[in-house]
Amino acid sequence: MTDRPTNTPGRDTGSGISRRRLFGAVGAGAVIAGAGAVAGRATGPDDTGVAAHGVVDFRGEHQAGIVTPAQDRMHFVAFDITTTDRAQVVAMLKTWTEMAARMTAGLEATEDGATGDGAYQAPSDTGEALDLDPSQLTLTIGFGPSLFDDRFGLAPLKPAALQDLPHFPADNLDPTRSGGDIAIQACANDPQVAVHAIRNLARVAFGTASVRWSQLGFGRTSSTSTAQATPRNLFGFKDGTNNLKAEDPDALSESVWVAGDDDQAWMAGGSYLVARRIRMLIEQWDRAVLKEQEAVIGRDKREGAPLGQTTEFDELDLESKGPDGPFVPVTAHVRLASAQHLGGIRILRRGYNFTDGSDGFGHLDAGLFFIAFCRNPLDQFVPMQLELARSDALNEYIQHVGSAVFACPPGLRDGEYWGQSLFEA
Amino acid sequence: MTDRPTNTPGRDTGSGISRRRLFGAVGAGAVIAGAGAVAGRATGPDDTGVAAHGVVDFRGEHQAGIVTPAQDRMHFVAFDITTTDRAQVVAMLKTWTEMAARMTAGLEATEDGATGDGAYQAPSDTGEALDLDPSQLTLTIGFGPSLFDDRFGLAPLKPAALQDLPHFPADNLDPTRSGGDIAIQACANDPQVAVHAIRNLARVAFGTASVRWSQLGFGRTSSTSTAQATPRNLFGFKDGTNNLKAEDPDALSESVWVAGDDDQAWMAGGSYLVARRIRMLIEQWDRAVLKEQEAVIGRDKREGAPLGQTTEFDELDLESKGPDGPFVPVTAHVRLASAQHLGGIRILRRGYNFTDGSDGFGHLDAGLFFIAFCRNPLDQFVPMQLELARSDALNEYIQHVGSAVFACPPGLRDGEYWGQSLFEA
Repeated sequence: MTDRPTNTPGRDTGSGISRRRLFGAVGAGAVIAGAGAVAGRATGPDDTGVAAHGVVDFRGEHQAGIVTPAQDRMHFVAFDITTTDRAQVVAMLKTWTEMAARMTAGLEATEDGATGDGAYQAPSDTGEALDLDPSQLTLTIGFGPSLFDDRFGLAPLKPAALQDLPHFPADNLDPTRSGGDIAIQACANDPQVAVHAIRNLARVAFGTASVRWSQLGFGRTSSTSTAQATPRNLFGFKDGTNNLKAEDPDALSESVWVAGDDDQAWMAGGSYLVARRIRMLIEQWDRAVLKEQEAVIGRDKREGAPLGQTTEFDELDLESKGPDGPFVPVTAHVRLASAQHLGGIRILRRGYNFTDGSDGFGHLDAGLFFIAFCRNPLDQFVPMQLELARSDALNEYIQHVGSAVFACPPGLRDGEYWGQSLFEA
Repeated sequence: MTDRPTNTPGRDTGSGISRRRLFGAVGAGAVIAGAGAVAGRATGPDDTGVAAHGVVDFRGEHQAGIVTPAQDRMHFVAFDITTTDRAQVVAMLKTWTEMAARMTAGLEATEDGATGDGAYQAPSDTGEALDLDPSQLTLTIGFGPSLFDDRFGLAPLKPAALQDLPHFPADNLDPTRSGGDIAIQACANDPQVAVHAIRNLARVAFGTASVRWSQLGFGRTSSTSTAQATPRNLFGFKDGTNNLKAEDPDALSESVWVAGDDDQAWMAGGSYLVARRIRMLIEQWDRAVLKEQEAVIGRDKREGAPLGQTTEFDELDLESKGPDGPFVPVTAHVRLASAQHLGGIRILRRGYNFTDGSDGFGHLDAGLFFIAFCRNPLDQFVPMQLELARSDALNEYIQHVGSAVFACPPGLRDGEYWGQSLFEA
């Protein structure tokens, strides 16, 4: 796979500003140049120094949107395939690929698609991103276990690692927020750019696939690069301090990327995406005292230091004890989710905060849309979540209400289309 | 009211960066200084030149968040009062005011509230905005018609202009997304800052008020300043070209601010907020041909020029005709909503795009959360909406599913609390 180019997060290209037609070259250049200094500051604790307005390469060894420094906003969609015609699915994937390559480059979904198709045709781009920057849009595709049933002849190619997740204790899953044949994760620093991308892909899928569920995330809850500050989740705690980072390729090879001899060959260089919609019972949480909150998490609230330590990146020491026992309680979230506790298991978290109106009982419907990438969910996410579901003190304050798993194939070479390694295997 | 300070949108103050404790003074200063050049570019077509990270004054002649240049993101909440004790409501309003003044200045809701209340108390700030900039947060309060029933003795003070909106043709209102005793509009350039503010206000309301409904808006659809570029709604069209602007104080006095002799004295300097959740049937729209879309709106899609004209800000000329009749069709949205057509009626629009998951039928639940401010909804919004509801070609592609109206009192002098002009009238 050495002939595949490497994704370049945040690379600015000439094409990166071509969607913004209202700007002269001088003005646009000044904005892009200035953006490097303050990238992400407008919208979150992001100090990556990459250009928040720029282009992330669509093609490369791996799909973008996995170890790409987490953008600030997300729109995630799961589709049901509504046809049994395999050729129609492949045709959709080819169309999607062309559109995705254009939109991630900051272009309309099709050439002059918003207005140039002729006055008496429906526009092939819906237009709401016409004046917006590329905003580091990434589009990441995954295939769910249900795609490998008997409809499309894909059953022999189903990876052993791609199984519906088991029922975990206290799961309260809504089937209308779970599963799906195909998922697309859109991440960008402008939510309108992410929504535009998903909406246009959904539009051309008409007759082949329909939206099963979708989720908007307004704020990232994980860093995936050492250059990013750690954001906070809606419990007010820094989240993802010990996350895997793009700068640690050995750990990514160990825990995120599927190796050539792991399973089905078409997944080599890919990864598995686990999505969990986690409702946070924020009203209950907000009535818990600070000591309780910190004991539940296992870190202090302001600094994010492991209990018993002083700064955020101090090593998590599960053995350290005070007069009342271990500094990090035996039911603390960070203990149970830690590699130390789990025999070395690590995953790449890439989740987002959400707030979706109210729940009808006087509360906000808010929480964390958890996304994780791992090399094998059965070996990594499942044992981790089993441990958490059984023992995590946090369970008093959260409820898992949606769940899905998808196989994300490797990145694309020039000319390849999404799913080619699977459909032409 | 000459002793009231004027709101200063985007003013940067020393206090404006005090929430961001992770930054040294030099780093923070550099970010703020740089922000002026690229303000808003990270997240939308905003060329206001104001500092997207900065502070908007909470107190002033009018409430902030009305003619303040529209921020990029919004969280709107409507509350039901759950007590019949007037003193309890006043106490909540006083607490809210202190918190709102702090949070809009970029501070925790209470001093050191996230961690400083003592380890064995529940934190009085939920913490998720600890590291974030002020982000031009504005909090705007309004009182609904139902607040003036017999519970709190306010009936004699109900403005004649504050009436539940009439049923308009084709309204399909969901009562759980409509009405409310009190509303708070939070706008900011960082959604997490807006959500944090609403969540903390809702938290301390426990026992006095509960969330009736809430709405997250991810992208502004209106400009309220001549310095802002016109954004696009989810139909892909520029929206709000002819909106009232902060730079036209005569028009604001005429159409937005309640005058001293208009109605109840406590509303002098205030305004009325109309909220409408407008579901856009985007799948139907996306299948309409470009000519049809442009005829429905009355403007061309790419430039936003009135039909028959060439650039966005060319005057809307309802009389201009081509060989096939008027360039702007008689059922076009911009014609029916125009001051020319409506005998001079104008309103200040300040809406946001939304996408709230899917509708269970394979479609995205997306649309426009319409917000308008006007001096008298009965004289302005109601006749305008009646005309639109009867004749607008756009009705084929939209559905009004939520509705509310609120009386927003004037701004606060130092020491005043939200609603003081009403509760101490």
